[in-house]
Amino acid sequence: MANPKQSSFSEQDFEAIYRVIHGRRDVRSEFLAKAIPDDVLGRILDAAHHAPSVGFMQPWDFLLIGSPDIRSQIFSHFQQMKDRADTYESDRQALYRSLKLEGILDSPLNVCITCDRGRSKGHGLGRQSDPMTDLYSTVCAVQNFLLAARAESVGVGWVSILDLDTLKQILSIPAHIHPVAYLCVGYVSAFSSRPELESAGWEDRTPLQRLLHFDGWNRRDDARAAAICKNAVNTDAHG
Amino acid sequence: MANPKQSSFSEQDFEAIYRVIHGRRDVRSEFLAKAIPDDVLGRILDAAHHAPSVGFMQPWDFLLIGSPDIRSQIFSHFQQMKDRADTYESDRQALYRSLKLEGILDSPLNVCITCDRGRSKGHGLGRQSDPMTDLYSTVCAVQNFLLAARAESVGVGWVSILDLDTLKQILSIPAHIHPVAYLCVGYVSAFSSRPELESAGWEDRTPLQRLLHFDGWNRRDDARAAAICKNAVNTDAHG
Repeated sequence: MANPKQSSFSEQDFEAIYRVIHGRRDVRSEFLAKAIPDDVLGRILDAAHHAPSVGFMQPWDFLLIGSPDIRSQIFSHFQQMKDRADTYESDRQALYRSLKLEGILDSPLNVCITCDRGRSKGHGLGRQSDPMTDLYSTVCAVQNFLLAARAESVGVGWVSILDLDTLKQILSIPAHIHPVAYLCVGYVSAFSSRPELESAGWEDRTPLQRLLHFDGWNRRDDARAAAICKNAVNTDAHG
Repeated sequence: MANPKQSSFSEQDFEAIYRVIHGRRDVRSEFLAKAIPDDVLGRILDAAHHAPSVGFMQPWDFLLIGSPDIRSQIFSHFQQMKDRADTYESDRQALYRSLKLEGILDSPLNVCITCDRGRSKGHGLGRQSDPMTDLYSTVCAVQNFLLAARAESVGVGWVSILDLDTLKQILSIPAHIHPVAYLCVGYVSAFSSRPELESAGWEDRTPLQRLLHFDGWNRRDDARAAAICKNAVNTDAHG
Protein backbone atom coordinates (compact mmCIF):
# COMPACT_ATOMS: atom_id res chain seq x y z
CA MET A 1 0.00 0.00 0.00
CA ALA A 2 1.02 3.59 -0.51
CA ASN A 3 3.70 5.02 1.74
CA PRO A 4 2.51 8.53 2.63
CA LYS A 5 5.95 9.40 3.99
CA GLN A 6 7.44 9.48 0.50
CA SER A 7 6.76 13.09 -0.14
CA SER A 8 7.58 13.97 -3.73
CA PHE A 9 6.25 12.73 -7.03
CA SER A 10 8.00 11.89 -10.29
CA GLU A 11 6.90 13.29 -13.66
CA GLN A 12 5.07 10.05 -14.39
CA ASP A 13 3.34 10.05 -10.98
CA PHE A 14 2.37 13.62 -11.54
CA GLU A 15 0.88 12.90 -14.95
CA ALA A 16 -1.14 9.99 -13.50
CA ILE A 17 -2.59 12.15 -10.72
CA TYR A 18 -3.73 14.86 -13.15
CA ARG A 19 -5.00 12.21 -15.57
CA VAL A 20 -7.26 10.66 -12.93
CA ILE A 21 -8.58 14.09 -11.94
CA HIS A 22 -9.29 15.10 -15.56
CA GLY A 23 -10.45 11.63 -16.62
CA ARG A 24 -13.03 11.09 -13.83
CA ARG A 25 -16.53 10.96 -15.31
CA ASP A 26 -20.02 10.77 -13.92
CA VAL A 27 -21.22 7.48 -15.40
CA ARG A 28 -24.84 6.58 -16.09
CA SER A 29 -24.92 4.39 -19.18
CA GLU A 30 -21.87 2.18 -19.53
CA PHE A 31 -22.09 -0.13 -16.49
CA LEU A 32 -21.14 -3.80 -16.74
CA ALA A 33 -22.62 -6.49 -14.44
CA LYS A 34 -19.14 -7.68 -13.33
CA ALA A 35 -18.80 -7.66 -9.52
CA ILE A 36 -16.20 -5.48 -7.81
CA PRO A 37 -13.70 -7.64 -5.86
CA ASP A 38 -13.52 -6.92 -2.12
CA ASP A 39 -9.89 -5.77 -2.25
CA VAL A 40 -10.69 -3.18 -4.95
CA LEU A 41 -13.71 -1.98 -2.98
CA GLY A 42 -11.56 -1.85 0.15
CA ARG A 43 -8.97 0.40 -1.50
CA ILE A 44 -11.65 2.77 -2.79
CA LEU A 45 -13.39 2.98 0.61
CA ASP A 46 -10.08 3.42 2.41
CA ALA A 47 -9.26 6.33 0.07
CA ALA A 48 -12.61 7.90 0.99
CA HIS A 49 -11.85 7.34 4.68
CA HIS A 50 -8.57 9.28 4.26
CA ALA A 51 -10.33 12.50 3.26
CA PRO A 52 -9.69 15.58 5.40
CA SER A 53 -12.30 16.20 8.09
CA VAL A 54 -13.03 19.11 10.39
CA GLY A 55 -11.40 18.45 13.77
CA PHE A 56 -10.45 14.98 12.39
CA MET A 57 -14.14 14.17 13.00
CA GLN A 58 -14.50 11.54 10.23
CA PRO A 59 -18.29 12.03 10.18
CA TRP A 60 -18.93 9.58 7.34
CA ASP A 61 -20.47 6.09 7.08
CA PHE A 62 -20.69 3.88 3.99
CA LEU A 63 -23.83 1.88 3.16
CA LEU A 64 -23.07 -0.79 0.56
CA ILE A 65 -26.25 -1.71 -1.27
CA GLY A 66 -26.17 -4.84 -3.40
CA SER A 67 -29.73 -6.06 -2.69
CA PRO A 68 -31.79 -6.00 -5.91
CA ASP A 69 -34.93 -5.45 -3.84
CA ILE A 70 -33.60 -2.33 -2.11
CA ARG A 71 -32.19 -0.98 -5.37
CA SER A 72 -35.56 -1.55 -7.09
CA GLN A 73 -37.30 0.51 -4.41
CA ILE A 74 -34.80 3.33 -4.90
CA PHE A 75 -35.09 3.12 -8.68
CA SER A 76 -38.92 3.41 -8.54
CA HIS A 77 -38.57 6.42 -6.29
CA PHE A 78 -36.01 7.97 -8.67
CA GLN A 79 -38.39 7.63 -11.61
CA GLN A 80 -41.14 9.48 -9.74
CA MET A 81 -38.67 12.21 -8.79
CA LYS A 82 -37.34 12.55 -12.33
CA ASP A 83 -40.88 13.04 -13.65
CA ARG A 84 -41.66 15.54 -10.89
CA ALA A 85 -38.56 17.59 -11.77
CA ASP A 86 -39.67 17.79 -15.41
CA THR A 87 -40.48 21.49 -15.37
CA TYR A 88 -38.52 22.37 -18.51
CA GLU A 89 -40.01 23.72 -21.71
CA SER A 90 -39.76 22.92 -25.43
CA ASP A 91 -36.26 21.88 -26.64
CA ARG A 92 -34.78 21.73 -23.14
CA GLN A 93 -37.65 19.51 -21.99
CA ALA A 94 -36.97 17.09 -24.84
CA LEU A 95 -33.28 17.13 -23.91
CA TYR A 96 -34.10 16.58 -20.21
CA ARG A 97 -36.30 13.60 -21.04
CA SER A 98 -33.58 12.06 -23.19
CA LEU A 99 -30.91 12.21 -20.46
CA LYS A 100 -30.09 9.02 -18.57
CA LEU A 101 -29.43 10.25 -15.04
CA GLU A 102 -28.70 7.10 -13.03
CA GLY A 103 -27.43 3.51 -13.17
CA ILE A 104 -29.14 2.23 -10.00
CA LEU A 105 -30.04 -1.19 -11.41
CA ASP A 106 -27.41 -1.41 -14.17
CA SER A 107 -24.50 -1.14 -11.74
CA PRO A 108 -23.76 -4.11 -9.43
CA LEU A 109 -23.34 -1.94 -6.33
CA ASN A 110 -24.84 1.25 -4.94
CA VAL A 111 -23.07 3.14 -2.14
CA CYS A 112 -24.72 5.73 0.07
CA ILE A 113 -22.23 7.99 1.89
CA THR A 114 -23.74 9.68 4.92
CA CYS A 115 -22.76 12.34 7.48
CA ASP A 116 -23.38 11.73 11.18
CA ARG A 117 -24.19 15.27 12.31
CA GLY A 118 -24.11 14.29 15.98
CA ARG A 119 -20.80 12.44 16.05
CA SER A 120 -18.72 13.54 19.02
CA LYS A 121 -15.39 12.68 17.36
CA GLY A 122 -13.36 15.83 16.74
CA HIS A 123 -14.79 17.53 19.85
CA GLY A 124 -16.56 20.19 17.78
CA LEU A 125 -13.29 21.75 16.60
CA GLY A 126 -13.96 24.03 13.60
CA ARG A 127 -17.69 23.38 13.62
CA GLN A 128 -18.70 26.23 15.92
CA SER A 129 -18.18 28.95 13.31
CA ASP A 130 -19.46 27.02 10.28
CA PRO A 131 -21.91 24.19 11.05
CA MET A 132 -21.73 22.96 7.43
CA THR A 133 -18.15 21.77 7.78
CA ASP A 134 -19.11 18.21 8.76
CA LEU A 135 -21.09 17.90 5.52
CA TYR A 136 -18.13 19.34 3.60
CA SER A 137 -15.80 16.74 5.14
CA THR A 138 -18.16 14.02 3.95
CA VAL A 139 -18.10 15.45 0.41
CA CYS A 140 -14.28 15.31 0.49
CA ALA A 141 -14.66 11.59 1.20
CA VAL A 142 -17.03 11.30 -1.76
CA GLN A 143 -14.54 13.00 -4.08
CA ASN A 144 -11.74 10.68 -2.92
CA PHE A 145 -14.11 7.75 -3.59
CA LEU A 146 -14.74 9.01 -7.15
CA LEU A 147 -11.04 9.46 -7.90
CA ALA A 148 -9.89 6.15 -6.42
CA ALA A 149 -12.67 4.38 -8.32
CA ARG A 150 -11.48 6.01 -11.56
CA ALA A 151 -7.94 4.81 -10.86
CA GLU A 152 -9.35 1.27 -10.44
CA SER A 153 -11.26 1.65 -13.77
CA VAL A 154 -14.50 1.57 -11.78
CA GLY A 155 -17.16 4.04 -12.89
CA VAL A 156 -19.36 5.99 -10.50
CA GLY A 157 -22.58 7.91 -11.12
CA TRP A 158 -23.79 10.33 -8.44
CA VAL A 159 -27.61 10.38 -8.32
CA SER A 160 -28.99 13.72 -7.12
CA ILE A 161 -32.65 13.32 -8.05
CA LEU A 162 -33.78 11.57 -4.85
CA ASP A 163 -35.86 12.81 -1.93
CA LEU A 164 -33.62 12.43 1.12
CA ASP A 165 -36.42 11.52 3.53
CA THR A 166 -37.63 8.74 1.24
CA LEU A 167 -34.07 7.49 0.80
CA LYS A 168 -33.61 7.45 4.59
CA GLN A 169 -36.83 5.49 5.01
CA ILE A 170 -35.84 2.85 2.42
CA LEU A 171 -32.38 2.43 4.00
CA SER A 172 -33.58 2.68 7.68
CA ILE A 173 -31.28 5.67 8.23
CA PRO A 174 -31.91 7.41 11.59
CA ALA A 175 -32.91 11.07 11.84
CA HIS A 176 -29.51 12.55 12.79
CA ILE A 177 -27.72 10.90 9.86
CA HIS A 178 -27.74 12.93 6.62
CA PRO A 179 -27.32 11.16 3.26
CA VAL A 180 -24.78 13.21 1.27
CA ALA A 181 -24.25 11.10 -1.85
CA TYR A 182 -25.99 8.17 -3.51
CA LEU A 183 -23.56 6.50 -5.89
CA CYS A 184 -23.96 3.82 -8.58
CA VAL A 185 -20.71 1.87 -8.77
CA GLY A 186 -19.37 -0.63 -11.29
CA TYR A 187 -16.92 -1.49 -14.03
CA VAL A 188 -17.76 0.21 -17.31
CA SER A 189 -17.40 -0.50 -21.00
CA ALA A 190 -15.69 2.89 -21.49
CA PHE A 191 -15.07 6.29 -19.92
CA SER A 192 -16.22 9.22 -22.03
CA SER A 193 -13.62 11.84 -22.90
CA ARG A 194 -16.03 14.66 -21.99
CA PRO A 195 -18.80 15.01 -19.39
CA GLU A 196 -22.08 13.56 -20.71
CA LEU A 197 -23.94 16.79 -19.95
CA GLU A 198 -21.39 18.64 -22.08
CA SER A 199 -21.57 16.17 -25.02
CA ALA A 200 -25.39 16.18 -24.86
CA GLY A 201 -25.45 19.98 -25.13
CA TRP A 202 -26.93 20.53 -21.66
CA GLU A 203 -24.15 22.86 -20.50
CA ASP A 204 -20.64 23.92 -21.52
CA ARG A 205 -17.47 24.36 -19.48
CA THR A 206 -16.75 27.86 -18.20
CA PRO A 207 -13.27 29.17 -19.12
CA LEU A 208 -11.21 29.03 -15.92
CA GLN A 209 -9.96 32.61 -16.22
CA ARG A 210 -13.48 34.00 -15.78
CA LEU A 211 -13.56 32.40 -12.33
CA LEU A 212 -10.45 34.10 -10.95
CA HIS A 213 -10.58 37.14 -8.64
CA PHE A 214 -7.61 38.88 -7.01
CA ASP A 215 -7.63 40.06 -3.37
CA GLY A 216 -11.40 40.61 -3.41
CA TRP A 217 -14.59 39.73 -5.29
CA ASN A 218 -14.66 40.87 -8.91
CA ARG A 219 -11.22 42.46 -8.71
CA ARG A 220 -9.87 41.27 -12.05
CA ASP A 221 -6.34 41.10 -13.44
CA ASP A 222 -6.59 39.84 -17.00
CA ALA A 223 -2.85 39.58 -17.60
CA ARG A 224 -2.27 37.59 -14.41
CA ALA A 225 -5.33 35.41 -15.04
CA ALA A 226 -4.11 34.63 -18.56
CA ALA A 227 -0.65 33.73 -17.23
CA ILE A 228 -2.17 31.38 -14.63
CA CYS A 229 -4.54 29.74 -17.13
CA LYS A 230 -2.04 29.42 -19.98
CA ASN A 231 -1.89 25.63 -19.74
CA ALA A 232 -5.38 24.96 -18.41
CA VAL A 233 -7.31 22.17 -20.14
CA ASN A 234 -10.42 23.09 -22.16
CA THR A 235 -10.22 26.77 -21.26
CA ASP A 236 -12.22 27.78 -24.26
CA ALA A 237 -12.21 24.64 -26.37
CA HIS A 238 -15.86 23.83 -25.77
CA GLY A 239 -16.98 27.30 -24.66
CA MET B 1 -1.26 18.13 -20.02
CA ALA B 2 -2.99 14.92 -19.05
CA ASN B 3 -4.92 13.06 -21.73
CA PRO B 4 -8.20 12.05 -20.11
CA LYS B 5 -8.95 9.67 -22.98
CA GLN B 6 -6.28 7.23 -21.86
CA SER B 7 -8.46 5.19 -19.62
CA SER B 8 -6.38 2.72 -17.66
CA PHE B 9 -3.58 3.15 -15.17
CA SER B 10 -0.34 1.23 -14.68
CA GLU B 11 0.74 -0.17 -11.32
CA GLN B 12 3.04 2.82 -10.83
CA ASP B 13 0.27 5.30 -11.75
CA PHE B 14 -2.02 3.53 -9.38
CA GLU B 15 0.45 3.71 -6.52
CA ALA B 16 0.98 7.46 -7.14
CA ILE B 17 -2.75 8.16 -7.04
CA TYR B 18 -3.22 6.34 -3.73
CA ARG B 19 -0.05 7.93 -2.37
CA VAL B 20 -1.33 11.45 -3.04
CA ILE B 21 -4.69 10.60 -1.43
CA HIS B 22 -3.06 9.08 1.68
CA GLY B 23 -0.23 11.63 1.83
CA ARG B 24 -2.39 14.79 1.65
CA ARG B 25 -2.15 16.71 4.92
CA ASP B 26 -3.79 19.76 6.39
CA VAL B 27 -0.79 22.07 6.88
CA ARG B 28 -0.57 24.84 9.46
CA SER B 29 3.04 25.06 10.59
CA GLU B 30 5.51 24.22 7.86
CA PHE B 31 4.95 26.96 5.26
CA LEU B 32 7.87 28.49 3.36
CA ALA B 33 7.80 32.05 1.95
CA LYS B 34 8.67 30.82 -1.60
CA ALA B 35 6.13 32.04 -4.17
CA ILE B 36 4.08 29.56 -6.19
CA PRO B 37 4.81 29.92 -9.94
CA ASP B 38 1.79 30.77 -12.10
CA ASP B 39 1.96 27.53 -14.08
CA VAL B 40 1.84 25.44 -10.88
CA LEU B 41 -1.06 27.49 -9.56
CA GLY B 42 -2.77 27.14 -12.93
CA ARG B 43 -2.57 23.33 -12.84
CA ILE B 44 -3.95 23.22 -9.29
CA LEU B 45 -6.85 25.58 -10.12
CA ASP B 46 -7.59 23.70 -13.33
CA ALA B 47 -7.78 20.45 -11.33
CA ALA B 48 -10.29 22.13 -9.00
CA HIS B 49 -12.27 23.36 -12.04
CA HIS B 50 -12.51 19.75 -13.27
CA ALA B 51 -14.46 18.56 -10.24
CA PRO B 52 -17.88 17.03 -10.82
CA SER B 53 -20.79 19.45 -10.46
CA VAL B 54 -24.53 19.02 -10.28
CA GLY B 55 -26.01 19.60 -13.74
CA PHE B 56 -22.46 20.58 -14.87
CA MET B 57 -23.20 23.84 -13.01
CA GLN B 58 -19.58 24.67 -12.03
CA PRO B 59 -20.80 26.95 -9.22
CA TRP B 60 -17.31 27.84 -7.96
CA ASP B 61 -15.11 30.94 -8.06
CA PHE B 62 -11.54 31.30 -6.84
CA LEU B 63 -10.34 34.37 -4.93
CA LEU B 64 -6.55 34.52 -4.86
CA ILE B 65 -5.42 36.60 -1.90
CA GLY B 66 -1.80 37.67 -1.83
CA SER B 67 -2.31 41.13 -0.28
CA PRO B 68 -0.62 41.29 3.16
CA ASP B 69 -3.18 43.89 4.25
CA ILE B 70 -6.20 41.69 3.44
CA ARG B 71 -4.53 38.64 5.00
CA SER B 72 -3.77 40.65 8.16
CA GLN B 73 -7.43 41.59 8.50
CA ILE B 74 -8.43 37.95 8.14
CA PHE B 75 -5.76 36.83 10.60
CA SER B 76 -6.97 39.33 13.25
CA HIS B 77 -10.49 38.07 12.78
CA PHE B 78 -9.31 34.45 13.06
CA GLN B 79 -7.63 35.18 16.39
CA GLN B 80 -10.84 36.61 17.84
CA MET B 81 -12.78 33.60 16.58
CA LYS B 82 -10.25 31.13 17.99
CA ASP B 83 -10.55 32.75 21.43
CA ARG B 84 -14.34 32.76 21.21
CA ALA B 85 -14.39 29.04 20.39
CA ASP B 86 -12.29 28.30 23.47
CA THR B 87 -15.06 26.56 25.42
CA TYR B 88 -13.03 23.49 26.35
CA GLU B 89 -12.12 22.45 29.87
CA SER B 90 -8.95 21.35 31.70
CA ASP B 91 -6.57 19.15 29.65
CA ARG B 92 -8.51 19.56 26.41
CA GLN B 93 -8.46 23.33 26.83
CA ALA B 94 -4.68 23.30 27.21
CA LEU B 95 -4.45 21.11 24.11
CA TYR B 96 -6.82 23.41 22.17
CA ARG B 97 -4.74 26.47 23.08
CA SER B 98 -1.55 24.72 21.95
CA LEU B 99 -2.90 23.85 18.49
CA LYS B 100 -1.81 25.99 15.53
CA LEU B 101 -4.92 26.11 13.37
CA GLU B 102 -3.96 28.32 10.43
CA GLY B 103 -1.11 29.62 8.27
CA ILE B 104 -2.82 32.80 6.99
CA LEU B 105 0.28 35.00 7.19
CA ASP B 106 2.96 32.28 7.00
CA SER B 107 1.81 31.05 3.59
CA PRO B 108 2.43 33.27 0.53
CA LEU B 109 -1.09 32.81 -0.86
CA ASN B 110 -4.59 32.39 0.53
CA VAL B 111 -7.38 31.07 -1.69
CA CYS B 112 -11.07 31.42 -0.95
CA ILE B 113 -13.27 29.00 -2.92
CA THR B 114 -16.88 30.14 -3.12
CA CYS B 115 -20.22 28.78 -4.36
CA ASP B 116 -22.50 30.98 -6.46
CA ARG B 117 -25.89 29.79 -5.26
CA GLY B 118 -27.74 31.72 -7.94
CA ARG B 119 -25.72 30.64 -10.97
CA SER B 120 -28.03 29.66 -13.84
CA LYS B 121 -25.50 27.29 -15.42
CA GLY B 122 -26.74 23.70 -15.24
CA HIS B 123 -30.38 24.81 -15.54
CA GLY B 124 -31.21 23.58 -12.03
CA LEU B 125 -30.68 19.93 -12.95
CA GLY B 126 -30.35 17.82 -9.77
CA ARG B 127 -30.82 20.80 -7.45
CA GLN B 128 -34.59 20.60 -7.09
CA SER B 129 -34.53 17.55 -4.82
CA ASP B 130 -31.42 18.48 -2.80
CA PRO B 131 -30.60 22.20 -2.67
CA MET B 132 -27.23 21.47 -1.01
CA THR B 133 -25.78 19.89 -4.13
CA ASP B 134 -24.25 23.13 -5.43
CA LEU B 135 -22.28 23.45 -2.18
CA TYR B 136 -21.25 19.80 -2.48
CA SER B 137 -19.97 20.40 -6.02
CA THR B 138 -17.84 23.25 -4.69
CA VAL B 139 -16.38 20.98 -2.01
CA CYS B 140 -15.42 18.48 -4.73
CA ALA B 141 -13.45 21.33 -6.33
CA VAL B 142 -11.78 22.00 -2.98
CA GLN B 143 -10.75 18.35 -2.61
CA ASN B 144 -9.29 18.32 -6.14
CA PHE B 145 -7.39 21.50 -5.20
CA LEU B 146 -5.95 19.80 -2.09
CA LEU B 147 -4.86 16.69 -4.00
CA ALA B 148 -3.34 18.54 -6.97
CA ALA B 149 -1.48 20.82 -4.55
CA ARG B 150 -0.09 17.76 -2.74
CA ALA B 151 1.09 16.35 -6.07
CA GLU B 152 2.90 19.67 -6.69
CA SER B 153 4.46 19.48 -3.19
CA VAL B 154 2.38 22.50 -2.22
CA GLY B 155 0.81 22.36 1.24
CA VAL B 156 -2.70 23.58 2.00
CA GLY B 157 -4.36 24.34 5.34
CA TRP B 158 -8.15 24.70 5.44
CA VAL B 159 -9.19 27.33 8.00
CA SER B 160 -12.63 26.65 9.48
CA ILE B 161 -12.60 29.07 12.42
CA LEU B 162 -13.86 32.15 10.54
CA ASP B 163 -17.22 33.90 10.62
CA LEU B 164 -18.52 33.75 7.06
CA ASP B 165 -20.22 37.16 7.15
CA THR B 166 -17.04 38.84 8.35
CA LEU B 167 -15.03 37.01 5.70
CA LYS B 168 -17.49 38.17 3.00
CA GLN B 169 -17.21 41.74 4.23
CA ILE B 170 -13.39 41.73 4.15
CA LEU B 171 -13.36 40.23 0.64
CA SER B 172 -16.35 42.28 -0.72
CA ILE B 173 -18.21 39.06 -1.52
CA PRO B 174 -21.87 39.67 -2.50
CA ALA B 175 -24.79 38.19 -0.57
CA HIS B 176 -25.64 35.30 -2.94
CA ILE B 177 -22.06 33.99 -2.98
CA HIS B 178 -21.23 31.52 -0.19
CA PRO B 179 -17.61 31.05 0.94
CA VAL B 180 -17.03 27.29 1.20
CA ALA B 181 -13.32 27.04 1.97
CA TYR B 182 -10.59 29.42 3.07
CA LEU B 183 -7.22 27.89 2.24
CA CYS B 184 -3.64 28.81 3.16
CA VAL B 185 -1.38 27.70 0.31
CA GLY B 186 2.39 27.40 -0.01
CA TYR B 187 5.43 25.21 -0.35
CA VAL B 188 6.32 23.48 2.92
CA SER B 189 9.43 22.25 4.68
CA ALA B 190 7.85 18.79 5.09
CA PHE B 191 4.59 16.86 4.99
CA SER B 192 3.76 15.01 8.21
CA SER B 193 3.18 11.29 7.95
CA ARG B 194 0.05 11.54 10.12
CA PRO B 195 -2.64 14.21 10.55
CA GLU B 196 -1.54 16.87 13.08
CA LEU B 197 -4.71 16.43 15.12
CA GLU B 198 -3.89 12.71 15.39
CA SER B 199 -0.24 13.25 16.39
CA ALA B 200 -1.28 15.92 18.92
CA GLY B 201 -3.71 13.50 20.58
CA TRP B 202 -6.81 15.49 19.67
CA GLU B 203 -8.55 12.58 17.91
CA ASP B 204 -7.73 9.12 16.52
CA ARG B 205 -8.67 7.46 13.25
CA THR B 206 -11.78 5.26 13.30
CA PRO B 207 -11.20 1.73 11.97
CA LEU B 208 -12.82 1.61 8.51
CA GLN B 209 -14.77 -1.59 9.21
CA ARG B 210 -16.86 0.14 11.88
CA LEU B 211 -18.16 2.51 9.20
CA LEU B 212 -19.52 -0.16 6.85
CA HIS B 213 -23.23 -1.07 6.67
CA PHE B 214 -24.82 -3.57 4.27
CA ASP B 215 -28.15 -2.92 2.48
CA GLY B 216 -29.39 -0.68 5.32
CA TRP B 217 -28.28 1.33 8.32
CA ASN B 218 -26.58 -0.72 11.05
CA ARG B 219 -26.98 -3.98 9.16
CA ARG B 220 -23.55 -5.43 9.86
CA ASP B 221 -21.64 -8.27 8.22
CA ASP B 222 -18.39 -8.69 10.14
CA ALA B 223 -16.90 -11.30 7.82
CA ARG B 224 -17.58 -9.25 4.69
CA ALA B 225 -16.39 -6.03 6.36
CA ALA B 226 -13.15 -7.74 7.40
CA ALA B 227 -12.61 -9.03 3.85
CA ILE B 228 -13.14 -5.54 2.40
CA CYS B 229 -10.87 -3.87 4.96
CA LYS B 230 -8.10 -6.48 4.88
CA ASN B 231 -5.64 -4.14 3.17
CA ALA B 232 -6.92 -0.82 4.51
CA VAL B 233 -4.30 1.58 5.84
CA ASN B 234 -4.29 2.33 9.57
CA THR B 235 -7.37 0.23 10.29
CA ASP B 236 -6.44 -0.14 13.91
CA ALA B 237 -2.83 1.02 13.95
CA HIS B 238 -3.54 4.29 15.75
CA GLY B 239 -6.91 3.32 17.26
